[in-house]
Amino acid sequence: MEKYEEYKSHCQKIADIEHSISILNWDQEVYMPEKSAARRAQQIATLSGLHHQVSTDKNYGKLLNKLSSDSSLNEEQKRNIKESTKEFERNTKFSEEFVTKMSKTISESFIAWQKAKQKDDFSLFAPKLKELVTLKREECEILGYEAHPYDAQLNLYEPGATVKELDFLFDDVKNQLVDFVAQIAKAAQNDDSIMLQYFEKSKQVDFTEELLSQMGYDFKAGRQDISSHPFTTTFSSKDVRVTTRVNENDLSEILWSSIHEGGHALYEQGLLDENYGLPAGSYLSLGIHESQSRLYENNVGRNIVYWNHNFKRLQEIFPEQLEPFNVDDFYKAMNLVKPSLIRTNADELTYHFHVLIRFEIEKELIAGNIKVEDLPSIWNKKYKDYLNIDVPSDSKGVLQDIHWSHGSFGYFPTYSIGSFYAAQFYHQALKEIPNLENQIENGNLNPLLDWLRNKIHQHGRLFAAEELCIKVTGEKLNFKYFMKYAKNKYSKLYQLN
Amino acid sequence: MEKYEEYKSHCQKIADIEHSISILNWDQEVYMPEKSAARRAQQIATLSGLHHQVSTDKNYGKLLNKLSSDSSLNEEQKRNIKESTKEFERNTKFSEEFVTKMSKTISESFIAWQKAKQKDDFSLFAPKLKELVTLKREECEILGYEAHPYDAQLNLYEPGATVKELDFLFDDVKNQLVDFVAQIAKAAQNDDSIMLQYFEKSKQVDFTEELLSQMGYDFKAGRQDISSHPFTTTFSSKDVRVTTRVNENDLSEILWSSIHEGGHALYEQGLLDENYGLPAGSYLSLGIHESQSRLYENNVGRNIVYWNHNFKRLQEIFPEQLEPFNVDDFYKAMNLVKPSLIRTNADELTYHFHVLIRFEIEKELIAGNIKVEDLPSIWNKKYKDYLNIDVPSDSKGVLQDIHWSHGSFGYFPTYSIGSFYAAQFYHQALKEIPNLENQIENGNLNPLLDWLRNKIHQHGRLFAAEELCIKVTGEKLNFKYFMKYAKNKYSKLYQLN
Repeated sequence: MEKYEEYKSHCQKIADIEHSISILNWDQEVYMPEKSAARRAQQIATLSGLHHQVSTDKNYGKLLNKLSSDSSLNEEQKRNIKESTKEFERNTKFSEEFVTKMSKTISESFIAWQKAKQKDDFSLFAPKLKELVTLKREECEILGYEAHPYDAQLNLYEPGATVKELDFLFDDVKNQLVDFVAQIAKAAQNDDSIMLQYFEKSKQVDFTEELLSQMGYDFKAGRQDISSHPFTTTFSSKDVRVTTRVNENDLSEILWSSIHEGGHALYEQGLLDENYGLPAGSYLSLGIHESQSRLYENNVGRNIVYWNHNFKRLQEIFPEQLEPFNVDDFYKAMNLVKPSLIRTNADELTYHFHVLIRFEIEKELIAGNIKVEDLPSIWNKKYKDYLNIDVPSDSKGVLQDIHWSHGSFGYFPTYSIGSFYAAQFYHQALKEIPNLENQIENGNLNPLLDWLRNKIHQHGRLFAAEELCIKVTGEKLNFKYFMKYAKNKYSKLYQLN
Repeated sequence: MEKYEEYKSHCQKIADIEHSISILNWDQEVYMPEKSAARRAQQIATLSGLHHQVSTDKNYGKLLNKLSSDSSLNEEQKRNIKESTKEFERNTKFSEEFVTKMSKTISESFIAWQKAKQKDDFSLFAPKLKELVTLKREECEILGYEAHPYDAQLNLYEPGATVKELDFLFDDVKNQLVDFVAQIAKAAQNDDSIMLQYFEKSKQVDFTEELLSQMGYDFKAGRQDISSHPFTTTFSSKDVRVTTRVNENDLSEILWSSIHEGGHALYEQGLLDENYGLPAGSYLSLGIHESQSRLYENNVGRNIVYWNHNFKRLQEIFPEQLEPFNVDDFYKAMNLVKPSLIRTNADELTYHFHVLIRFEIEKELIAGNIKVEDLPSIWNKKYKDYLNIDVPSDSKGVLQDIHWSHGSFGYFPTYSIGSFYAAQFYHQALKEIPNLENQIENGNLNPLLDWLRNKIHQHGRLFAAEELCIKVTGEKLNFKYFMKYAKNKYSKLYQLN
């Protein structure tokens, strides 16, 4: 037991450094003055080096080794040791030099990407991205993989995921979703002009804080700030922060940013503080994380029952803009299906084509079959092929997302996986929670949160994603739930047969 | 040269951790949600442990040792090595056990002090303070000293300062300032009701941002936020942040908080980025730091010429409140001299009696000549003797300041030293900068900043405080400059002969 306490305390030390890095990153995105960038990159690199050092401490390795064969541990403790051992083994594969180099390259790439996006000039990003891709390809070799180098990247975010499985899943997307979206495109188009009016910034922000509180987000254990790219970050389950973005001429931007990040944050606030630093106190995978944000964003936040409650409040705040409309106009506007340029603005159906494109590009980029300098042309061609859209500029095309500048390859697929999990979980919640949608219609989101806390949040990483999915829904991840949800909702919205 | 580069890079690593801790502290005071407190304390403790580990690394010690006898280094490099060696030797004097015990006792004392202050009951603080004083006395023995144990404490904040010198300096305060303040007390009292009106918070904040910009504070390398206790914090010379406080019913709080912290921040922004992490890139001493904040707060910020320019702008922002007044009313209100209970609210003359009292108590406490349980009665007697004030309660008396609960003994004197340096520096600036006060009257503060940058800021810790003072003003710190400034200014204000 003494050894296990020693292990816990070492895990907490690792977590302390990790979360300190998160605080430095949060500040960088939200409040940091511009001239601070270079030194901040260095500070983050130094902490990352220390994080690596403490995570790969030889004595910690010996401790894990001893505890791995300690039969006096209970199941949860065994699971923690198993997960920590996996992590330790992965971390010890990297030299401190490699980790520091990666972290520094990522900071520099991020700065280059910002400039490139602002100036709409991919060539300002390309050299740093090239360095980063080279490092990432090296990382795959260090991590090891069975079938495809990209599997190594995928597993950083979605343990157990493979190119093979994703190819299969995205075949479903292509075979079923492409047709359905084509049907919608032929139907009469709805109108979203209700969203595209002037809405004062501070009132928008205040309203989303009401929505977050209604969801059960605890503002005493978090806060919402503004950043150009919304994100959620965790310093402990007692300090989980979201950011959102505001467009005074498009109400939809803040709404689904805040609700989406709120879903992520509820997961993190639902992890148990007593498990701080342990696998049991960490999220399971990005796919499962995304399932929580998508469930709130789409299954709840784009649901008529949610707005049957909240639209009245929104009308009170923006009477001039919204009194001429009713909740159905608002519901139709938020569920407009229309191929578009920007992933984060996409509707919940065509969204998956954006992910599909990135998945196809990333796996070839990591395999070495695509050159960085060809990315804009490849990107633009795929947008034409899948979405029938001409990309007018790189800032609205290949430069739109932050991910690659952060070295995150293999991350995008988790967005689609998350949506598909969300549909499957919500399907189950509807079966298990009495009158769930009546509760939502009354503005009571607590039963849903309680169910998610109980079924998913509190378990942290005690189960694998597949295991958890079976435990919660009785079967593995299956695209049919998303397709069923989509057909049911959008057939009505677009009056299809 | 390679060894010297190795040394520089290790210094930067130490600085990176130190500044990361500062970022965590800044966030804690400014934006952190309340439930985060316990985990944040743990995160800061972990980084502090790593900081100690890296600062006392044996290989770093060996490196310093080699470089100490390297005759190929230039003067600046030699000075850096000398200062770093002093720091290393100080850090390695303490056992890990002692450091942990000190840090634990400080945390407990701080909590006890908070409770005692809130409940207005010194006895709740006394036992912990007693433990802390015992540890601090032990610390003096470990650190070593020549004449007086308190010298060891003073040197933590003001290298080179001694009880002997401070006794001499505070004798001047007693002999000259006490009489002068007594004369003022007999004169007709001015009025500060102009400050005590309603001033809208956001307008106050915007105005102080204008003042900071006018001072030369670079908002691209810093920012101003709100906190309950104003402070300046440095993450690098490219990211120096100030906080201020706002009272909607007393304009003076934000004005001198912002200007004071702005003075601190100009010093830090004026350190050379190329010296990041090195002694040459760090402030010299707390006294010199405070000289910069006091120079802007008092010699500039409470000067009629400064407001001859800025009062018009303030009237534009608050016409209703300020148009009935003229700049002289405002000038008199900001320079009211009146003995008071609370150090942080004191005017720039009686302020030094507050420091004097703390200095007299601290040196005897550390020498073992005062018992902790007698502190309230000693405190109250001194407030009667020096300020002719009856202390109504311990929370407004001996418990008012945070410093002792943090184990900071020897810190208070640097506040007075800073003011005296400020007067001496400003006296010299008036001699050397053509038409300095005309420039200020025209809102041009650049010549002053250029002079301070050139004479003080850029040198970091390349000179000792005494050395620097002689270099800048031709003589050692001398109280007569403060007294001359005070007599000149307040004789006019209070129409004394």
